[in-house]
Amino acid sequence: MTLTAEQQAEIDAQRAARSETRRATVPALEEMLFKAVPVLDHGFVRAIDYMGDDGAVVQAARVSYGRGTKRVSEDAGLIRYLMRHRHSTPFEMAEIKFHVKLPIFVARQWIRHRTANVNEYSARYSVLDREFYIPAPENLAAQAVVNRQGRGDVLQGEEAEEVLRLLRSDAMQTYDHYAQMLNETAEGEKVDPSRQGLARELARMNLTLNTYTQWYWKTDLHNLLHFLSLRADAHAQYEIRVYADAMLEMLRAWVPLTCAAFEDYRMGAVTFSATMLAAIKRMLAGEAVDQKGSGLSKREWVEMMAALGREP
Amino acid sequence: MTLTAEQQAEIDAQRAARSETRRATVPALEEMLFKAVPVLDHGFVRAIDYMGDDGAVVQAARVSYGRGTKRVSEDAGLIRYLMRHRHSTPFEMAEIKFHVKLPIFVARQWIRHRTANVNEYSARYSVLDREFYIPAPENLAAQAVVNRQGRGDVLQGEEAEEVLRLLRSDAMQTYDHYAQMLNETAEGEKVDPSRQGLARELARMNLTLNTYTQWYWKTDLHNLLHFLSLRADAHAQYEIRVYADAMLEMLRAWVPLTCAAFEDYRMGAVTFSATMLAAIKRMLAGEAVDQKGSGLSKREWVEMMAALGREP
Amino acid sequence: MTLTAEQQAEIDAQRAARSETRRATVPALEEMLFKAVPVLDHGFVRAIDYMGDDGAVVQAARVSYGRGTKRVSEDAGLIRYLMRHRHSTPFEMAEIKFHVKLPIFVARQWIRHRTANVNEYSARYSVLDREFYIPAPENLAAQAVVNRQGRGDVLQGEEAEEVLRLLRSDAMQTYDHYAQMLNETAEGEKVDPSRQGLARELARMNLTLNTYTQWYWKTDLHNLLHFLSLRADAHAQYEIRVYADAMLEMLRAWVPLTCAAFEDYRMGAVTFSATMLAAIKRMLAGEAVDQKGSGLSKREWVEMMAALGREP
Amino acid sequence: MTLTAEQQAEIDAQRAARSETRRATVPALEEMLFKAVPVLDHGFVRAIDYMGDDGAVVQAARVSYGRGTKRVSEDAGLIRYLMRHRHSTPFEMAEIKFHVKLPIFVARQWIRHRTANVNEYSARYSVLDREFYIPAPENLAAQAVVNRQGRGDVLQGEEAEEVLRLLRSDAMQTYDHYAQMLNETAEGEKVDPSRQGLARELARMNLTLNTYTQWYWKTDLHNLLHFLSLRADAHAQYEIRVYADAMLEMLRAWVPLTCAAFEDYRMGAVTFSATMLAAIKRMLAGEAVDQKGSGLSKREWVEMMAALGREP
Repeated sequence: MTLTAEQQAEIDAQRAARSETRRATVPALEEMLFKAVPVLDHGFVRAIDYMGDDGAVVQAARVSYGRGTKRVSEDAGLIRYLMRHRHSTPFEMAEIKFHVKLPIFVARQWIRHRTANVNEYSARYSVLDREFYIPAPENLAAQAVVNRQGRGDVLQGEEAEEVLRLLRSDAMQTYDHYAQMLNETAEGEKVDPSRQGLARELARMNLTLNTYTQWYWKTDLHNLLHFLSLRADAHAQYEIRVYADAMLEMLRAWVPLTCAAFEDYRMGAVTFSATMLAAIKRMLAGEAVDQKGSGLSKREWVEMMAALGREP
Repeated sequence: MTLTAEQQAEIDAQRAARSETRRATVPALEEMLFKAVPVLDHGFVRAIDYMGDDGAVVQAARVSYGRGTKRVSEDAGLIRYLMRHRHSTPFEMAEIKFHVKLPIFVARQWIRHRTANVNEYSARYSVLDREFYIPAPENLAAQAVVNRQGRGDVLQGEEAEEVLRLLRSDAMQTYDHYAQMLNETAEGEKVDPSRQGLARELARMNLTLNTYTQWYWKTDLHNLLHFLSLRADAHAQYEIRVYADAMLEMLRAWVPLTCAAFEDYRMGAVTFSATMLAAIKRMLAGEAVDQKGSGLSKREWVEMMAALGREP
Repeated sequence: MTLTAEQQAEIDAQRAARSETRRATVPALEEMLFKAVPVLDHGFVRAIDYMGDDGAVVQAARVSYGRGTKRVSEDAGLIRYLMRHRHSTPFEMAEIKFHVKLPIFVARQWIRHRTANVNEYSARYSVLDREFYIPAPENLAAQAVVNRQGRGDVLQGEEAEEVLRLLRSDAMQTYDHYAQMLNETAEGEKVDPSRQGLARELARMNLTLNTYTQWYWKTDLHNLLHFLSLRADAHAQYEIRVYADAMLEMLRAWVPLTCAAFEDYRMGAVTFSATMLAAIKRMLAGEAVDQKGSGLSKREWVEMMAALGREP
Repeated sequence: MTLTAEQQAEIDAQRAARSETRRATVPALEEMLFKAVPVLDHGFVRAIDYMGDDGAVVQAARVSYGRGTKRVSEDAGLIRYLMRHRHSTPFEMAEIKFHVKLPIFVARQWIRHRTANVNEYSARYSVLDREFYIPAPENLAAQAVVNRQGRGDVLQGEEAEEVLRLLRSDAMQTYDHYAQMLNETAEGEKVDPSRQGLARELARMNLTLNTYTQWYWKTDLHNLLHFLSLRADAHAQYEIRVYADAMLEMLRAWVPLTCAAFEDYRMGAVTFSATMLAAIKRMLAGEAVDQKGSGLSKREWVEMMAALGREP
């Protein structure tokens, strides 16, 4: 991650300022506030504002006049109950805002989560930085053979080197041509006074999808959990999962009771279909059940046995 | 408005507590925080949490690393620009949460604004209070004759008295029967040990629509402005408009620059159709234009002339 | 359910009309279209329009140029795969619209599902019918003792009779007073020419929450499934569950493959927490596990054992 | 636009099929259904399904049991009334689905409209086609000088040629490297058996933003109008406006009454702020008003005078 001295100074200034407030405040998250947590080679995620805490969930569930919280054990119990029974509205009562720097192809996945507020850096209005995501060698995965949508082994040797060389050189070349077409200095002057310069909203089309963009992304706790349950999952693409992982750490600092319930009832939970449940009941009764006899497809059988930690 | 001593104590305790925060803080709204502003005879609205300020709008529009704000005049200009050109996403970056006590028939209108988070006091789980909205005599309007959806003159004399008498006695009677069917003391004991008591989720159906309910309602600044533009409008039903008016005062304290732009470009603004615009251009050119010649319907003509402050 | 002769004639006329279309058409749902299925004592639900079928889900998942469907077994397999892995967006590509008549207290629960389009009959604009929900004797449940939000045994004898008497007489009395305050005939004339009549938007507040209202409700297939998974569930209040049950039958006619996958992977499925899963693994390995040793709370233990069909 | 023979055959087959339906049907839109309307050099938009018509709007506003429509003039009047007073919910009762092929940078703008359903062709799962948007020479605009976000004059001569050359060669080169890294034939075989091939989800990052993607996009009539009011507007970027223009023609065929009201009250309408309105009133009263005396900023004054068709 490369923050300019100016950017770092702005962040430091924001971290230094303090105010007094009547609002619920979370010291553990305050400690992290505004700090940029590095993700991928040039990206970051930083929490820049929040509203509410675990108490806001409890308070909303009780529609109380005051804080609404009781003993920690009671609050934890209520939060666990709400999570288990998918009473989602109390979790909508806390809100968080992030500033994220991320490759465009990751942004395209991320934006599919519609219940959030977004302001993206505008390439119609401004010039993008010369920064691209180039995977680390250990993340240069081959196409999976069994799963059309997944990753296989890590590429090795010459093939890996060639891929890195192509990604780097194409990104730099297309960026340089982007800059050339714009014909614009950082101060907005013309580089070559004899040329007009292509409109920014057009020139940007020459950039590759690993170019970094950035945005403010704000969502409520319920929708954040939904995002994390999909994107911090082992099936998510690595390049978005690392952002989700970084946000999960902030979640833990912000709402520890909610985070613990989330990890037990959502991240670590498994859903079994009616047919799977019937098979499990028979197994528990001591019956020997195999795929054929279970009524499950081969794929479902493998998924169920994996979830149960058993040999298929 | 009738807050119990216990409720008032909870509010006072919350107002007394202070924390230090790195977040943007708005002293004028902090001053109001948690205080219940009376609305109608037993209702209230109180701001109970917020995220961001005018600066959050500016910051998001600029996708900045720090506060993003510049001189007040520049920030005001940017906010006015965003409001005028309906760039709505930066206004989604601030959030506010209210606790509202309101009659059920008002809640039914309010809930139609879907882009908000709501936790309502549950009458499946708890017993509602014995409080109903009875209009003040000056708000006891007759049905409008011209407008099927509006109000006419204020009812007078015996008719008014009879209406108030019916509203009061029916609300009290249905509530008393509700309590009787529940057969439950405030402590959850049976009043008459020989009866089981009807389930709360059923008994509530006997209540009238002027019974008060309460909820937590959280929304972003953009959607709050949309709510206010419809509900603080002269065409809104009086009983919801008074809530919107109270919230408008909190808006002014919270985001003064946004509020000023909103009042100029939204609350006080008028939209003219293409046909109306053509008529106005002709008027400005000195032509005498009448309804027939304008291409407008009678109703539209009246609406346009009213907006222009001219005799139809 | 009481449809007037005029309403029935309108429905019949709509059922009689036929057009030719290039759109995907579902004969089994066409057969049901517009018919009012009775629910509760005076309510109904009827499907009045739809877009797409099982093929629309498949087509969207494949982003195809044509129908996109292949052999039924392949389509069923794809739909099951999408449902199992919670790939929800293809299910958003089919849409359905219902006309529902329902008690106001049911409407208040229903409206909490925000991702839907609603047009409700306006009591500001029109006069509501004199129809209220009075539970059948077998649905007159007592308050549950263990579960604050649930129902217990059915009320018996005098207590039941008294409840029915109160519900009936209060609903009729408040409605009659509503009509009296309105002072309006069905044709919009004044009943008593010496009185002005209270504005409709005010008079409605005297009605009880079991008064019937009606609305058009339109949603996509994904959100319909979410609604049904919550409202056709055994924990849902009986008075909304009967609507969900009726809609589930229409779902079955409309999108049989999706409905089958939904029943296997959602309605009949069970989610076990990480802690529960650990206990189940130990049980399957032949270990004797009890509540204490499981790390589960008493309540969770009971829930898990019930899901597994075992004695706690 | 380049449809393969196979794609065209799929479209033709879909156009040839007919069914009988009880649903509202719009012959003018049926005539267009499934046909791909060319947009830009390789893109298209085609309506592939719809629900409802102008009658659905009227029907919902009246919450009727039958068609709900009356004489065309009455329906038109009601639709105009709803549009003028921003009663938006009846317009949510009709729905339309499009299949769109569009450059990725256009897709990134489009997706910001969140109240819609989307299924995009997956570059994690499939290989993208070798098609890029290259602007026609007359659309090769320079950066605007006054408006940081707009376009100026069309580039000429050598500068234009150089831009086109760079866009073309970079797109082709990055695509060829994408294909090389994938190491995959159209049939999914390896081109070079000695290499594994990079995972699709990674290789796609090498593509430029003018690469074409495609999606199914479904929305309700109200949100479609909102999309069109922003994207068919003169201030929208040309490359998205041409899609909006093509969809506006389909709108006209589908819901002619709604489309006419939309063009009068939204597309052709102008909103004046409170301050502008005050100035216009003074002008109409014959006063000479200038910018200074109006209380408007220079920019607002210019905007207002332009809207009024007068010299600033």
